[in-house]
Amino acid sequence: MEKTLLSIVLILIFTKIGGIISRKLKMPEVLGALISGVILGPVVLNIVQYDNNIKLLANLGVIMLMFLAGLETNVEEFKKSGLSAFIIAVAGIILPLVLGTISAYMFFNNFWENLFVGVILTATSVSITVETLKELGKLNTRSGINILGAAVIDDVLGLILISVVLAVAQTSSSNSGSLGVLSILYVLVKIVLFCILSIVGVIYIPKILNKFSEYTKPGRELLTFSIAFAILIAFIAEELGIASITGAYIAGLILSSLTHKEYLERNVKAISSGFLSLIFFASVGIESNLKGINLEVIYITLTMFIIAVVGKIIGCGGAAKLLKMTTSESIQIGTGMISRGEVAIITANIGLQKGIISEEIFLPTLIVVILTTIITPILLKLAFSHRIEKSV
Amino acid sequence: MEKTLLSIVLILIFTKIGGIISRKLKMPEVLGALISGVILGPVVLNIVQYDNNIKLLANLGVIMLMFLAGLETNVEEFKKSGLSAFIIAVAGIILPLVLGTISAYMFFNNFWENLFVGVILTATSVSITVETLKELGKLNTRSGINILGAAVIDDVLGLILISVVLAVAQTSSSNSGSLGVLSILYVLVKIVLFCILSIVGVIYIPKILNKFSEYTKPGRELLTFSIAFAILIAFIAEELGIASITGAYIAGLILSSLTHKEYLERNVKAISSGFLSLIFFASVGIESNLKGINLEVIYITLTMFIIAVVGKIIGCGGAAKLLKMTTSESIQIGTGMISRGEVAIITANIGLQKGIISEEIFLPTLIVVILTTIITPILLKLAFSHRIEKSV
Repeated sequence: MEKTLLSIVLILIFTKIGGIISRKLKMPEVLGALISGVILGPVVLNIVQYDNNIKLLANLGVIMLMFLAGLETNVEEFKKSGLSAFIIAVAGIILPLVLGTISAYMFFNNFWENLFVGVILTATSVSITVETLKELGKLNTRSGINILGAAVIDDVLGLILISVVLAVAQTSSSNSGSLGVLSILYVLVKIVLFCILSIVGVIYIPKILNKFSEYTKPGRELLTFSIAFAILIAFIAEELGIASITGAYIAGLILSSLTHKEYLERNVKAISSGFLSLIFFASVGIESNLKGINLEVIYITLTMFIIAVVGKIIGCGGAAKLLKMTTSESIQIGTGMISRGEVAIITANIGLQKGIISEEIFLPTLIVVILTTIITPILLKLAFSHRIEKSV
Repeated sequence: MEKTLLSIVLILIFTKIGGIISRKLKMPEVLGALISGVILGPVVLNIVQYDNNIKLLANLGVIMLMFLAGLETNVEEFKKSGLSAFIIAVAGIILPLVLGTISAYMFFNNFWENLFVGVILTATSVSITVETLKELGKLNTRSGINILGAAVIDDVLGLILISVVLAVAQTSSSNSGSLGVLSILYVLVKIVLFCILSIVGVIYIPKILNKFSEYTKPGRELLTFSIAFAILIAFIAEELGIASITGAYIAGLILSSLTHKEYLERNVKAISSGFLSLIFFASVGIESNLKGINLEVIYITLTMFIIAVVGKIIGCGGAAKLLKMTTSESIQIGTGMISRGEVAIITANIGLQKGIISEEIFLPTLIVVILTTIITPILLKLAFSHRIEKSV
């Protein structure tokens, strides 16, 4: 117990200082938190161990993180963003998925592991792009609106993809032979049911709850019941073989249309960003075995990085071009979707824990997240500069 | 892991519903949370077990709870409350302590266990009194001001008392013979040093931090560093043999004079009252072995209850009378200090975990807390009614 208390203190202080340094360098705070974890872990200082206690808090942290992500999702924007954003998002998911899976065969021979590499490479993290677009004052251009819409759709589709692959991979590795197909069908039926229930939930639950909102004030009750709801849906999703993070995200989506959403968001943010999600990010850093770096890992990293960049620029940019946007806009949209973030790390983390991917993929994922985060704002500024716009 | 998620969901929902019912019955929410724990635990439904995961979250919960209590303490009131409140508080601590220790010899023969019974009976919980006084509109009477001041002093002195007794009891049980006195002296020196450092901290740290407050905005950094600070001081206190709750409370006291205190209080409250402290209260209920009720336990409960009531009415009321207050005011003050709450439960919980008290004291403590909470508002309304005021 005492050891855990000290570990928590070290994690909170290091990740927050790491976050502040990241912010000063115009990087997302997540990066600083991850690197702080690496420093605290066995690779450098070796003063914090990844034991059961830290694991529990990290698991609660990632549930809170995804719950908050759901809460912060603008469902209206999702509904409005229209066909163009949807096509851009789908193209930007399919290309990295296919390219990632195929190129993984250069290193591994396991289909599910290779497919999971593709899955890891799909999810865009739009926060760094939004920051950059805000700075450039381009958030309300046609490119900006399409990037935002596509990123939201990308998030949802990405999570569905992760859930399906995770469920099927787990089922097919535990069953082999003729029973396999039936089990997979069973899993797919469960996922479809979960999706239908989720959609019904997102549409109707807020309507029902908001009817009572005049009688209820935003308070601790709302907060506690919402946390219980998020953990419950995460638990159910996990039990169904779908990722718990998908459940937590869906719970957030459902509650994101509540009248008292703002109160909820502020308080969940305190628990997540102020406390528990820091422990999650640190734990990822602590787990990542930097000593395992070798030539193969470097090759894997380079391959994944190239697919991460090319997959989105050609996938999203190409879709935009097909939708009759200008070349300049298409490049802007493709570039804006490059950066990867929390979801890629969370996905890789789940894959590692479930034994679907090996450690040799986990480390490259972290590095790809860092690299794409660094180059996205640089490329985005370039894509919005006059030089390119005039040259088109 | 999955089991823990479900346990958390059940605890959050049950404790919050219990809290709502308590509030409707004009009782503090803590009671509902405790009873919910009993219902979830082995005594009734047996669906939540007190395992290592719940223990960790409960421990974090009690640290957050005491940190919040420290933050909410009005240090200015503490400084102003003056000699009369101090004397009332001291008298109201000494009498239950002495009476509790002596009468515990009717049931047990171990000095430290008996002294601990006395310690459990000292700490007033003023929240229910404040609520009642507010309702009666008597918060700003001379009685009201003295009750508030004495309750704050009572808290601080009570925690020092717990720390001293806990440290000495642990030392003297692990050492015997000639070394014993030296070890106890050593422990006392540590406690004195901790107290001096705490006082210096309470006075100077806010001054230093507030100088930088214009450069810092209230935000996640402040929250994270404050949580880290609270857990760190709790850890240090625990390492010194002083209770971790004392450390967490002192950390709260130190930060209670910050410029951004309000922001901090609101967010720590979300984490504590909205989430983790509910797990603590439920865990106390889960742990409490109601099946152990027998005639002796009932006698112990009755004895402790009488001392809890008489100790404060005669201790605090007598002191007030000696300070030349009217009989009516003295009765009001004595009555206002009767109710016990979180601190008594936390103290008993620590005593049980450290093996200083037996389970036969734990259960009576819970019942005494419940009973004093129920009768305080009733007696207080009576004490402030015209009938008594006129009869004096």
